[in-house]
Amino acid sequence: MLVAESLRFGRVLMIDGTFQTTEGDEFVYHEMLAHVPLMCHPRPSRVLVVGGGDGGTVREIFKHWAVENVELVEIDKVVIEASKRFLPSISSKLGEGRLKIITRDAADYVKKTKKRYDVVLVDSTDPVGPAVRLFSEDFFKDARRILKDDGILVSQTESPFLHKGFIARLYKRLGKIFPIVKPYTAPVPTYPSGLWSFTACSKKYDPPVISRETVVETRYYTPEIHRACFSLPRFLEDALNPRKKL
Amino acid sequence: MLVAESLRFGRVLMIDGTFQTTEGDEFVYHEMLAHVPLMCHPRPSRVLVVGGGDGGTVREIFKHWAVENVELVEIDKVVIEASKRFLPSISSKLGEGRLKIITRDAADYVKKTKKRYDVVLVDSTDPVGPAVRLFSEDFFKDARRILKDDGILVSQTESPFLHKGFIARLYKRLGKIFPIVKPYTAPVPTYPSGLWSFTACSKKYDPPVISRETVVETRYYTPEIHRACFSLPRFLEDALNPRKKL
Repeated sequence: MLVAESLRFGRVLMIDGTFQTTEGDEFVYHEMLAHVPLMCHPRPSRVLVVGGGDGGTVREIFKHWAVENVELVEIDKVVIEASKRFLPSISSKLGEGRLKIITRDAADYVKKTKKRYDVVLVDSTDPVGPAVRLFSEDFFKDARRILKDDGILVSQTESPFLHKGFIARLYKRLGKIFPIVKPYTAPVPTYPSGLWSFTACSKKYDPPVISRETVVETRYYTPEIHRACFSLPRFLEDALNPRKKL
Repeated sequence: MLVAESLRFGRVLMIDGTFQTTEGDEFVYHEMLAHVPLMCHPRPSRVLVVGGGDGGTVREIFKHWAVENVELVEIDKVVIEASKRFLPSISSKLGEGRLKIITRDAADYVKKTKKRYDVVLVDSTDPVGPAVRLFSEDFFKDARRILKDDGILVSQTESPFLHKGFIARLYKRLGKIFPIVKPYTAPVPTYPSGLWSFTACSKKYDPPVISRETVVETRYYTPEIHRACFSLPRFLEDALNPRKKL
């Protein structure tokens, strides 16, 4: 793990040689991971974060008044410690009283816990090494089990430009597990290609639909962006739902 | 000027040390510059392209059956020649019979021409050196004059992440010249920050509204993207229309 100063994006956090987050553009990624499901769900009371040890996702979650309990399950406690020490603007809510931090393999935790959640946010590293399990059929079936009957899960799902085959395979896999599966995108300058994807899996609510008029203070997210981000590039639509050749 | 082979984005064209276009991702930029105004205007018959010597914008324009005449005013004929020779997938329509190529300073041409256009597309380099004039009040007033009463102009207007002050100043300037001014965005991996902006200036039609059901064959653009791309990041909305402090 490396924390470094950059010229344009402030401090950056790298794990295994890839950018995880930067002070300069982390807000787009964290806002779009958190606020899309939390503004869709009418009363997100209990939230689970898988990964996300830097704390940026947790910071966004606590902007929602309905949230009563957040659990963060991070495999690597060094990430949490480094973020607290070097990235104060990102880790600012890691000391919150409503937050419980669990340093453990999240795939194991999700398999075994008896708790139930309104929203699960998978804020993982790329699907290599330890994070591979967080994209497996087993993990998503476990995640479905720990979600309440109207729960929503969102996972980061890599770059549409660079990994459309991966996104499409995952979309197919998730479609067998959840009744509603909708990918969406957001621009994150420091991630490969600059465009990132997320996939929302929902048991009841339609992810593009906002459930209430609460205003959250943000730098990227707006209600208009919430609805717009589900409009996908033609090449990604075609990868998800191949068109019949005429 | 430099044409080079890249590992991931095919051949790339650079001018004065900055990426102008690459075979790998040019489709996003050229589709979004061309199809947004051309799908908004109900009958785009005469089109002027300012800059755009690589031919990508022209290629997209000729996907519209209503187009009868296109003029391309490019200051540097070497760009046209290099694109014809080294970038065949981008320059493929530079030999079209309905296209007239004029190698001249476009700001001068727009000031003097007596012709009138339905759509003007400003496909310029960054606002430094010769392209500075293409972002001036004078140029946009001339462009207004050569647009028909229901004409639309779109210009590329740099990166929201890196140049929001520039976009906001331009937005203010254009608001004094055109009755309808609407910026929009698209992800272009090889441009700085990966997110790019365009600004649509219209005399009559509302740019987010599509006028007809024609289908254009594209790799990025869709009608849903057309409507969605006008939803701007909060930080850009705030730069364009500062909110009153409470």
